[in-house]
Amino acid sequence: MTDFTATRALFDLPPGVIYLDGNSLGPMPVAAAARVARTVTEEWGKMLITGWNDAGWMAMPRALGDRIGRLIGAEPGQVVLGDTLSIKVSQALASALEMRPDRRVILSDNGNFPTDLYMAEGLVRSLDKGHQIWTVDPEAVEAHITDDLAVLMLTEVDYRTGRRHDMARLTRAAHEAGALVIWDLAHSAGALPVDLAGCGADFGVGCTYKYLNSGPGGPAFIYVAPRHSDTVRPALSGWLGHAAPFGFEPAYRPGEGIERMRVGTPPVLQLAALEAALDIWDGIDMAALRARSIELSELFIAQVETRCPELVLASPRDAAQRGSQVSFRFADGYAAMQALIARGVIGDFRAPDIMRFGFAPLYIGEADVRRAAHVLQEVMEKRLWDDPAYRTRAAVT
Amino acid sequence: MTDFTATRALFDLPPGVIYLDGNSLGPMPVAAAARVARTVTEEWGKMLITGWNDAGWMAMPRALGDRIGRLIGAEPGQVVLGDTLSIKVSQALASALEMRPDRRVILSDNGNFPTDLYMAEGLVRSLDKGHQIWTVDPEAVEAHITDDLAVLMLTEVDYRTGRRHDMARLTRAAHEAGALVIWDLAHSAGALPVDLAGCGADFGVGCTYKYLNSGPGGPAFIYVAPRHSDTVRPALSGWLGHAAPFGFEPAYRPGEGIERMRVGTPPVLQLAALEAALDIWDGIDMAALRARSIELSELFIAQVETRCPELVLASPRDAAQRGSQVSFRFADGYAAMQALIARGVIGDFRAPDIMRFGFAPLYIGEADVRRAAHVLQEVMEKRLWDDPAYRTRAAVT
Repeated sequence: MTDFTATRALFDLPPGVIYLDGNSLGPMPVAAAARVARTVTEEWGKMLITGWNDAGWMAMPRALGDRIGRLIGAEPGQVVLGDTLSIKVSQALASALEMRPDRRVILSDNGNFPTDLYMAEGLVRSLDKGHQIWTVDPEAVEAHITDDLAVLMLTEVDYRTGRRHDMARLTRAAHEAGALVIWDLAHSAGALPVDLAGCGADFGVGCTYKYLNSGPGGPAFIYVAPRHSDTVRPALSGWLGHAAPFGFEPAYRPGEGIERMRVGTPPVLQLAALEAALDIWDGIDMAALRARSIELSELFIAQVETRCPELVLASPRDAAQRGSQVSFRFADGYAAMQALIARGVIGDFRAPDIMRFGFAPLYIGEADVRRAAHVLQEVMEKRLWDDPAYRTRAAVT
Repeated sequence: MTDFTATRALFDLPPGVIYLDGNSLGPMPVAAAARVARTVTEEWGKMLITGWNDAGWMAMPRALGDRIGRLIGAEPGQVVLGDTLSIKVSQALASALEMRPDRRVILSDNGNFPTDLYMAEGLVRSLDKGHQIWTVDPEAVEAHITDDLAVLMLTEVDYRTGRRHDMARLTRAAHEAGALVIWDLAHSAGALPVDLAGCGADFGVGCTYKYLNSGPGGPAFIYVAPRHSDTVRPALSGWLGHAAPFGFEPAYRPGEGIERMRVGTPPVLQLAALEAALDIWDGIDMAALRARSIELSELFIAQVETRCPELVLASPRDAAQRGSQVSFRFADGYAAMQALIARGVIGDFRAPDIMRFGFAPLYIGEADVRRAAHVLQEVMEKRLWDDPAYRTRAAVT
């Protein structure tokens, strides 16, 4: 059984801060500082160009992909790091559409993160083949799976409400209709157990800087089901996805399996931080993490509903239907969140009225949850959100 | 006048190493170590999510883009950092093709870096509209500019030979034929003065980890001519290119000007290293750098041709026709380069027979050039390349 009282010490968090925003940017693993410093001074500084071989830089996207694989139900050799999540969504979608050349419908939901929809919109415009993007309510997805469907593209956990799709059920329904399925695991990887292979997903994508704690701008990952990975034609066919990247051949030949989903030169400093973060994850039992996350989330809901009657739960009440976040609606949620942050309880806000709190058992315990609810009660009771200072919107919210 | 004897101390290079591979991966600026450490421990560690505003992370892709702009002939607000060069090539090409919907020819040359051609090939396949990629000899490019041309896509400096295209002349010829022009500045930015605006380029892309010294996997940049930047429809339309990224609107609306070429979350640790590197570049006169680079290159050619008759110059003999690298052909070039590297002179090899040496005046002086030629003479005279130990190919060459 993972000891979550011990994992807290593996993170460097400022004194007095209760960090409930790991669903946006995970905190710094203590070991990341030395790991990144080593990459900069000992590897880049001393090995120079030979670091690509001698420090294993070129192998990192695959090696770290294998370690993420365990957390999301993928076998070694099926996940590779690189690019941003937006790019990986586009790459997966373009590849999938090419596998269903006679179909024209992409189905998603209006709880999907906007960039997934924007990338799909841009791709559809570029392709100019009459594809349609159907964006329906999350609850209506299954009813819209028809024989016209090319690709079902969803994020498992809704970034605003924390609502969780049933990956196995929807994947099965889409496959029965002859469609392919892409799962975005941005709010799943490191938040709850995921079983990509078990649910039969065709593609999976996700980011590493949220629950996985790889640091600001850490690279994304992509999974391709092994039944496709040696035949899929990768859109965004870059040289590091080539069968012989250093052969410098004039024409593209896709690399073996997941290698072909690589594109350009990997971001080694970001990968070094991710490596330190994964040293923590390697020891974590995901079932235990999920159980703990539910305990903390349930406690927070109970505390907030008792203490703050103005706040309306926006997340599903059934813990099995949620990811690892809890959201409440409040009309002045932006200002209330700023007041909360000023008092050391860091959550975030998502337009139009969502106050969002993420629960990461690696560094959040029951005392933090009780304290956060207490401070939130103070903000609400004293109407601290009514202070004009909290109403000025920052560039990044 | 820039003092190139003083800039050497701004880089951390291992004792005894003569580093002639900055055209592949620039060395570590001394200040990069502290700058990256600060971002990790003081920004990520202490500011957590608020670093996006308070440490200026979200603004870095534009702020650093402006500083690169000075080196490549762009005004502030015309360059933004992000992604890899492969992605930026694809983004520029897809956007450009959409601006020439009635034309079907993409012209490049067989000295272009393979990933540019691979990305074009993948894009053409995805679009499936009958585009053709013409890949001709560098010398034949101008003769192939016809009224069918949609986009001329070239790398200014050939990665193998160092041959340099005449950007102004080819851009003018392409424009006269009604085509758009994309320049890849991978081996130009930080190597020689570039004048994107002066030559009228439509798009410019490049990488930062070569002559600019941003470290392994540093982000790429993209320039869009101001006459296009408010009307171009960005392919790869990600959320950070949206007019209101944190409005989370369901439909994509491109941001103002160059902002729209942003895609996903910027790689903050890599950008921190780039920032330290640009602190050096801010003080550099590019004309003086170019003059010094030519002096060093000319000296190296003279020394090698005197000392190593087996090596055949693969670069143009006229310095004005070269970038900041010098290449020699030798059938056993791979092994010869390994023997050279084992003796502390680091260049690199490009298939099939190119020994490549980059001259970066920031940290290379005349004594280094003479010493490198002397060691090369020893390798050749003693046939050190005949040692089987030097024939085993590394994964990354």
